[in-house]
Amino acid sequence: MESMDESSKKVEEEVERVVEQAKELQDSASSLINRTSSEEQSLRQRALSLDSNIRRLRSLLRSNNLFDSKLVDKLEEDLQRAKCLICDGDASAFLPSKAQGSFVKMFIGPINVRASRKDVQLKVKEEYNSYRDRTALLFLLFPSTLLMLRSWIWDGCLPAFPVQLYQAWLLLLYTGLALRENILRLNGSDIRPWWIYHHYCAMIMALVSLTWEIKGQPNCAQKQRGVQLFLQWAMMQGVAMLLQNRYQRQRLYTRIALGKAKRMDVVWGETAGVDGQLWLLCPILFILQGFEAYVGLLLLRTAFDGVVSEWQVIFCGILLVLMAVGNFINTVQTLMAKLRFKAKMKKSKTKPEL
Amino acid sequence: MESMDESSKKVEEEVERVVEQAKELQDSASSLINRTSSEEQSLRQRALSLDSNIRRLRSLLRSNNLFDSKLVDKLEEDLQRAKCLICDGDASAFLPSKAQGSFVKMFIGPINVRASRKDVQLKVKEEYNSYRDRTALLFLLFPSTLLMLRSWIWDGCLPAFPVQLYQAWLLLLYTGLALRENILRLNGSDIRPWWIYHHYCAMIMALVSLTWEIKGQPNCAQKQRGVQLFLQWAMMQGVAMLLQNRYQRQRLYTRIALGKAKRMDVVWGETAGVDGQLWLLCPILFILQGFEAYVGLLLLRTAFDGVVSEWQVIFCGILLVLMAVGNFINTVQTLMAKLRFKAKMKKSKTKPEL
Repeated sequence: MESMDESSKKVEEEVERVVEQAKELQDSASSLINRTSSEEQSLRQRALSLDSNIRRLRSLLRSNNLFDSKLVDKLEEDLQRAKCLICDGDASAFLPSKAQGSFVKMFIGPINVRASRKDVQLKVKEEYNSYRDRTALLFLLFPSTLLMLRSWIWDGCLPAFPVQLYQAWLLLLYTGLALRENILRLNGSDIRPWWIYHHYCAMIMALVSLTWEIKGQPNCAQKQRGVQLFLQWAMMQGVAMLLQNRYQRQRLYTRIALGKAKRMDVVWGETAGVDGQLWLLCPILFILQGFEAYVGLLLLRTAFDGVVSEWQVIFCGILLVLMAVGNFINTVQTLMAKLRFKAKMKKSKTKPEL
Repeated sequence: MESMDESSKKVEEEVERVVEQAKELQDSASSLINRTSSEEQSLRQRALSLDSNIRRLRSLLRSNNLFDSKLVDKLEEDLQRAKCLICDGDASAFLPSKAQGSFVKMFIGPINVRASRKDVQLKVKEEYNSYRDRTALLFLLFPSTLLMLRSWIWDGCLPAFPVQLYQAWLLLLYTGLALRENILRLNGSDIRPWWIYHHYCAMIMALVSLTWEIKGQPNCAQKQRGVQLFLQWAMMQGVAMLLQNRYQRQRLYTRIALGKAKRMDVVWGETAGVDGQLWLLCPILFILQGFEAYVGLLLLRTAFDGVVSEWQVIFCGILLVLMAVGNFINTVQTLMAKLRFKAKMKKSKTKPEL
């Protein structure tokens, strides 16, 4: 009986200790959270004032043409270095982020999706790329399987269900891409807004195509001409996505390998390694954009010829043409920016030798 | 000329200072991030070991019936208090979270959506409730407008476009709800998994209904019977959602008002204020579930009678019946849990008086 009392005493003490430990843990947790948030607040203020200082000095240097031009060049470079240090380093977590877009808010609410650590941000980008890789493969396989089955088994006439399954998958895919790209932007990626808008358009098109009745026999080949062209375009897009992903991935690896290098160096390194691929990628992109516009125009023609007169046909046709034009303009702008940047880099590299 | 030199000297110094400040900021930022993450790590370990200790002591108390039962009751209460302290307080941020579900990952990737501060978590819940409020209103207005226009303007025959617009909105709404609920779970909400599965089912149904052709004249009333029933059910769901939201909101307010009160107290307070509403809510929920099953069965009957023979009809019918059954089982289980809890509370309240 005494040993029973003893062991019950022991358990009682243990429970007491646990309660005590829980209180301590709670205290340390709230103290850490409070301390961290006040330190973060002060860093945020420092980052903000430094950023505005850099901006002020820059505009001062640019407006004032009385200074020695060599000195101005040197000072501007220094400011650029300071800017890179706070934008690319750990301090970037404390700069005010871009406002969370209403697209992300609509789906997940005002939750914070910004990673404070640089390595986590890079991991987010890496995951985005691997997501694109996986989907690009499906992007190639799904429509090509449908087209092959159409001529081998389905006797030239696509059944509705697999096509609608494909359209639903497209909707899911584009929603995922648009959300991820918005999140990447919040994490400091400089992705062009157009590519996000492009995925909004693709989402709307996938949604509209779901409501679009897939007609069967008779005259199947004629009625399904639009769907067939669309699937062919999707296959080509799969190839382009795979190539783009390779290119993007190499850029990212260069960036990680260079680690804490300045932004300028990184961008220079980026272009250096993958020039050859860019000249393979661009013609494919332009052909794809041409084909996209062609499919759009064909859809519009079938609508105005009266073969298929649903509103979905006209809507998808217009959307495809708009997307093709937007893609073309943005690809050209990206290329121009790259060429300008290279020219500038060459100039500043040869300058010291003169 | 001298004053020019002077001012250029001043700018040079200022630039130097900015570069210096940028370096300092970068250093403080990375030191804060490193320090915080190592402290968080240690808190995480403490929380984990404490949690397993509590579990061990609990099972010890339960398995060992040699101790005095009064002592066991007292010790179990102590352990419960310790458990509440680490689960409801700031320390909860350092307990291992539920694994991020593949649903959230599919849309936004493996980004961290868990808020570390308790007040942010409560804000997430508050926003979720206000999202539900806004959508509940639309849930009521959208289908009722369609039904009114149907009888006033459209001569008993719904046109395809507005119905499809409504279905697309439903898809968006349910996707948003399912994502938010998954995020709430990650932030420590104890929402029943069924309600999330229910929203997955609703998403699939909205998607399937988009591919479902809305037939026009002749015989419109008969062909559109399913759609019409579905809209009526949606209207009723709007009313139920509004009532549910009121109930949930009052629970949350009680929780916030009680602040750092223990979990037990909070739950007691929760049930106390809103008992009357629960007895209004439950019959409405049961009627709604009955109507849901009825709509599902009617859809199945039209399919097997051969009036409408598309696969979508059968699919939606089965899904509606399954959802109704699942809803019913889960509502009953929730009610039972509440009643059991109340009985227990009454017992422990009256005990000291005896």
